[in-house]
Amino acid sequence: MKIIKNPSQKNWKELIQRPQNEKNSLHNIVQQVFMDIQESADAALKKYTFHFDGIELKQIKVTQQELKEAENLLSQELKQAIFQAKSNIEKFHFSQKENSQFIETQPGIQCWRESRAIEKIGLYIPGGTAPLFSTVLMLGVPAKIAGCRQIVLCTPPDKKGNIHPAILFAAQTIGITEIFKVGGIQAIAALTIGTESIPSVYKIFGPGNQYVTAAKQYAQEFKVSIDLPAGPSEVLVIADSQANPDFIAADLLSQAEHGPDSQVIFLTTDESILNQTINSVTAQLEKIPRKEIAKKALDNSIGILFDNLDTCFQFSNLYAPEHLILAIDKAKEYRHNVENAGSVFLGNYSCESAGDYASGTNHTLPTNGYARNYSGVSLDSFIKKITFQELSKEGLQTIGPTIELMAEAERLFAHKNAVSIRINKN
Amino acid sequence: MKIIKNPSQKNWKELIQRPQNEKNSLHNIVQQVFMDIQESADAALKKYTFHFDGIELKQIKVTQQELKEAENLLSQELKQAIFQAKSNIEKFHFSQKENSQFIETQPGIQCWRESRAIEKIGLYIPGGTAPLFSTVLMLGVPAKIAGCRQIVLCTPPDKKGNIHPAILFAAQTIGITEIFKVGGIQAIAALTIGTESIPSVYKIFGPGNQYVTAAKQYAQEFKVSIDLPAGPSEVLVIADSQANPDFIAADLLSQAEHGPDSQVIFLTTDESILNQTINSVTAQLEKIPRKEIAKKALDNSIGILFDNLDTCFQFSNLYAPEHLILAIDKAKEYRHNVENAGSVFLGNYSCESAGDYASGTNHTLPTNGYARNYSGVSLDSFIKKITFQELSKEGLQTIGPTIELMAEAERLFAHKNAVSIRINKN
Repeated sequence: MKIIKNPSQKNWKELIQRPQNEKNSLHNIVQQVFMDIQESADAALKKYTFHFDGIELKQIKVTQQELKEAENLLSQELKQAIFQAKSNIEKFHFSQKENSQFIETQPGIQCWRESRAIEKIGLYIPGGTAPLFSTVLMLGVPAKIAGCRQIVLCTPPDKKGNIHPAILFAAQTIGITEIFKVGGIQAIAALTIGTESIPSVYKIFGPGNQYVTAAKQYAQEFKVSIDLPAGPSEVLVIADSQANPDFIAADLLSQAEHGPDSQVIFLTTDESILNQTINSVTAQLEKIPRKEIAKKALDNSIGILFDNLDTCFQFSNLYAPEHLILAIDKAKEYRHNVENAGSVFLGNYSCESAGDYASGTNHTLPTNGYARNYSGVSLDSFIKKITFQELSKEGLQTIGPTIELMAEAERLFAHKNAVSIRINKN
Repeated sequence: MKIIKNPSQKNWKELIQRPQNEKNSLHNIVQQVFMDIQESADAALKKYTFHFDGIELKQIKVTQQELKEAENLLSQELKQAIFQAKSNIEKFHFSQKENSQFIETQPGIQCWRESRAIEKIGLYIPGGTAPLFSTVLMLGVPAKIAGCRQIVLCTPPDKKGNIHPAILFAAQTIGITEIFKVGGIQAIAALTIGTESIPSVYKIFGPGNQYVTAAKQYAQEFKVSIDLPAGPSEVLVIADSQANPDFIAADLLSQAEHGPDSQVIFLTTDESILNQTINSVTAQLEKIPRKEIAKKALDNSIGILFDNLDTCFQFSNLYAPEHLILAIDKAKEYRHNVENAGSVFLGNYSCESAGDYASGTNHTLPTNGYARNYSGVSLDSFIKKITFQELSKEGLQTIGPTIELMAEAERLFAHKNAVSIRINKN
């Protein structure tokens, strides 16, 4: 972790740079896989699953039997934990439902919006060492609340052809039953194009490695939309003198263990807190299993001492962190200083892990500076808002001349005529 | 206009195809212009403006003097019309403001969302024969309500180096004063990268030709976001026997006059209405100045007779039109049948022109089938929603074991530790 004291503002632009992933040229392989899926569908899926996941699958779809077995493989405690997390995520995302407001902009002119679920969506859940069943909840719960009719889940099988039981259990708990053992580019291609087994969808959600990311990017050329542009995970912590260095160190490490390209930024107004935190990071690092990963991430990370909290917030807003922890006295009162962030954690007991798993907020958030122009995933991500309007004859008569004048000034006479023909009719 | 009677459902997929624009290979020229702007900034802007717009500009920024003069060049009636439209658009978009709801998901765990404006945005307004000052209102009004701090408007100058006064007046009325005489790829590149004159922004809005569209696409590689994927404009009308064929014909033509690639779909359950509408289209077509454009658009367009309204809605939802007019009896009662559409116009007096200009709804809408997975522009397009959470010590103690169990099952022990270190502290 690099330590910097009161960097001059002209150096900030450099400090907010994320670690650059080399612009990978995965385009060719992505295109090839999409073409194969287009031509050979399920056969191509099985071929790639054999090639990349090392398993020859007879059936791509998870069976009822497998779903039942998954339930028996989990401890009662973990199942309860999943229920608890689901309940909180449900409460928070349910509160995001919006009732239509019927607005009479002028007498006889009524305008309003109505929400409609995106009919078919796809969820991608990575496999590998960490089975991200929490992401199943984070994406599946709001999809169900929105009322998406078809929810298709893809996740890669392990070498024995199995899916981690926690993923299957979490999916079942929500009511997702269309689950397919397929990962990587081929999963995204199948969700985009459709195969005999896997239905095509309108929007694809979920995290993934560089192949999955490149495939989601490419899927957009087929009119499929995606949740968010991807980037490595990151946290920024702002601390004052009342903060607890051990807590902060634990938060920094929980971000750093995600991956070697994760980034961790620590801003404080207190030099002693800075030093104690660095020491605590070093000490705690030794005890975590993903030490080597976290170590690499810490190489990209910085701790900065600033004169005052205002400057910390200025820097943070420029950085636009995915996660922002305010370990400061009366943190809630400072929330209006936050302009750009994905999700904000207030005070010494709101650790990022809470939001990652169970407090109720969503953990699919804008990274890589995208908190400047994107929101995280919410109920909104699963719906469209359609505008409606109803004009009475009198309403159109009142506003007609305005429309006619504007259409004429834009030289769109057929637009004008659509009004004239109506208001001139007796 | 092609007429089809009761097409079998297996042919629908073909019928909902939009006219294909050849996949244009504009990538090279777009990339070149972006590189030039990156290297030579304003000098490159002036070079391209001379090259493409045929005018050598001394100053790129519109002056106070020019803004003042614009006001004098417009008729009192047109100014009143602009005020009226602005007022309705304001009313409707202001109603989209959302208050934070503080949700206690469990005792001691509070979660909520807060809206923050996207700080810097760019509006692109095309020039050419139709000066789209209505789009200035549609994008500028919600940007102001959202509270965007910097709103930068680019629009190409005419051969004399002027901007249409209605564009300048509309911008002024809203309070937009950073207006630049620059169009095409170079405008989008400037908004993305920034030059001496033009500030860079985080999100770019606005319609444009294929060059502008390709440039907006490319801008996303620089972490800039855009309003919507682009496509030609379209309308779908559903009519029953009480509909007025002259009104429908006028609506179809108002869509067709947009461009030769516009698409117009007419569905009805009444053969006589179908025939009368076709005849009325032919008659009205002769009278509009943009007749040649509309004629070409009508070549791509279809009128379909269906047995019943249910089938009409099924087809419409598959097509997912940008604009949907329901010229049917008790239209409002049918609104729940609409799953996919950008904006819906109910009854015989809600013509599309009303929403295009002045009723209050936004006219920047998803085309090309994107109404399946995108909403039109609204206040939401100019803000991010940031999630916040505050856990008390007791709150974390209650939920702590849930988080610890889940983190452990995902093999993320540093995540678990961020909780343990807090709840184990006395």
